[in-house]
Amino acid sequence: MTAFLLPLLLAQAAAAQASGRAAPHPQSPTEIVAVAPATDWVAIAPDDLLVMDVAPGPAGASRRIVIQLIAAPFARPWVANVRRLAAAHWWDGTSINRVQDNYVAQWGDATEKKPLPSGLAAASERDYAIDTAALAAGERTVGPADVYAPATFFYRSWPVGAEGQGQGAAWPVHCYGMVGVGRDVSPNTGTGAELYAVIGHAPRHLDRNIALVGRVIEGIEHLSSLPRGTLGLGFYDRAEQRVAIVRIRLASELPTSEQPRFSYLSTSSATWARYAAARANRQDAFFIRPAGAADICNLPVPIRRLR
Amino acid sequence: MTAFLLPLLLAQAAAAQASGRAAPHPQSPTEIVAVAPATDWVAIAPDDLLVMDVAPGPAGASRRIVIQLIAAPFARPWVANVRRLAAAHWWDGTSINRVQDNYVAQWGDATEKKPLPSGLAAASERDYAIDTAALAAGERTVGPADVYAPATFFYRSWPVGAEGQGQGAAWPVHCYGMVGVGRDVSPNTGTGAELYAVIGHAPRHLDRNIALVGRVIEGIEHLSSLPRGTLGLGFYDRAEQRVAIVRIRLASELPTSEQPRFSYLSTSSATWARYAAARANRQDAFFIRPAGAADICNLPVPIRRLR
Repeated sequence: MTAFLLPLLLAQAAAAQASGRAAPHPQSPTEIVAVAPATDWVAIAPDDLLVMDVAPGPAGASRRIVIQLIAAPFARPWVANVRRLAAAHWWDGTSINRVQDNYVAQWGDATEKKPLPSGLAAASERDYAIDTAALAAGERTVGPADVYAPATFFYRSWPVGAEGQGQGAAWPVHCYGMVGVGRDVSPNTGTGAELYAVIGHAPRHLDRNIALVGRVIEGIEHLSSLPRGTLGLGFYDRAEQRVAIVRIRLASELPTSEQPRFSYLSTSSATWARYAAARANRQDAFFIRPAGAADICNLPVPIRRLR
Repeated sequence: MTAFLLPLLLAQAAAAQASGRAAPHPQSPTEIVAVAPATDWVAIAPDDLLVMDVAPGPAGASRRIVIQLIAAPFARPWVANVRRLAAAHWWDGTSINRVQDNYVAQWGDATEKKPLPSGLAAASERDYAIDTAALAAGERTVGPADVYAPATFFYRSWPVGAEGQGQGAAWPVHCYGMVGVGRDVSPNTGTGAELYAVIGHAPRHLDRNIALVGRVIEGIEHLSSLPRGTLGLGFYDRAEQRVAIVRIRLASELPTSEQPRFSYLSTSSATWARYAAARANRQDAFFIRPAGAADICNLPVPIRRLR
């Protein structure tokens, strides 16, 4: 382990603390988050968690992916549809059909003929952004400078691009792990039945062109490490290459004892401010030249599993 | 294929061309590159190509990764060492030991005890950047605005951060697929024997903190789709999880008939300018709202295989 010696550094820090000496270096982002007070963490409601079980991997290990649905008022028609599709168990028996390197893994009905449940909301281009004025006061934290959007902020832990800090349009941005709604050429065609997760460098050109409905908060490796498809856009060539989806459920539909529990670090907290500053100015011993900046997708919101 | 309908769009464009009608949309980046004149492509010298063969995958398919070494005057001591290590066949029998999701895949000697060949150059923190004045005139093309560096440019196809356009320090940047030199806490410790490839969102905080010696130009999926390691930093827990490296050779050491041939799109060409503009302002039919910008890591340099 000659590179990126975080374990060694953590051990050194722990040893220094134990011996009463000052730590040999400023706290790393990980260390800052590790000592966040309980009040800086926000529980994620079971109705905002999508639990996705796919067929076991080559070695037989189970594969579960957990997705957090995006906070209101973003992407409301699609989030409603995703909840309805999950309640209808619509994805059970569908599959992951497309894995394109440095881009997305995508799932849904490969036949494109499975009937959708009734009552899905119609969505349109209008719904790709919201009005900043509709956001709750005190839940919006200024984000870093950006080359794509005039302004950025975090809202209830979600990375957002915006026309300005206090007014104008605002839209979630395509960072690693974000989950979006596949659509046809018409911007009004995506229902939420076809979803993808970002598994590469942030494809920010998709912002405001596709709806984002959530993010993977556990098990992204079960998507990002899948074999890449060899057809155009990374679609699998043969049906047997597809990865079967056993079931997708809202956590709120699971028995209480089986519901996974997660919380996120409040982006309005003092810990978040320290974490973001440390990400932009790495002072841990490995770094000889802090960057002085972090783009919005290099500020992943810490998530912890409670059980 | 209900999303990202590129094949359909290409078919429409081809049909429109065949019928003599104007194409129904402006050219996409892919279409622009497809019609680049031969003079816009630059052959990559066999001495700048590293051919890495790893053990076959679970399905028995061969796995080859090709790396282009970075252009002079960047990272000279490490590039010299990489060539020397390849000539000594030093990597044969070593392994990929670390795969960390959204970060890096790393290879080298897991025992950390394999003797290095003699004559490796010493490198130091000084070598992480070069002086812009040392660059060849006419080979530097202005790059996009950046949140990490005061300026960016492309030099002979390499993405570079810099203090300014014409003077001051310049350094290659950590985009997807870039290959860097693992090191210990001391910035003077990396020889080039331990290498990693970026397999996630650009970890730009590593710029100027670690040497970059090249980029993967073919077969990145054989690294990015590997199972993630479960120890800290993504190191594999058990020796049998490591992926054996059969051999790494400079292409120039292979028989001429076996040397792969690649070329890159000249970043000084008119095609590059059109490509970069189209990446920043996607006008193909799928997009309803062009971004108006592309960060330097969303401008991957087109590479084509000649044989």
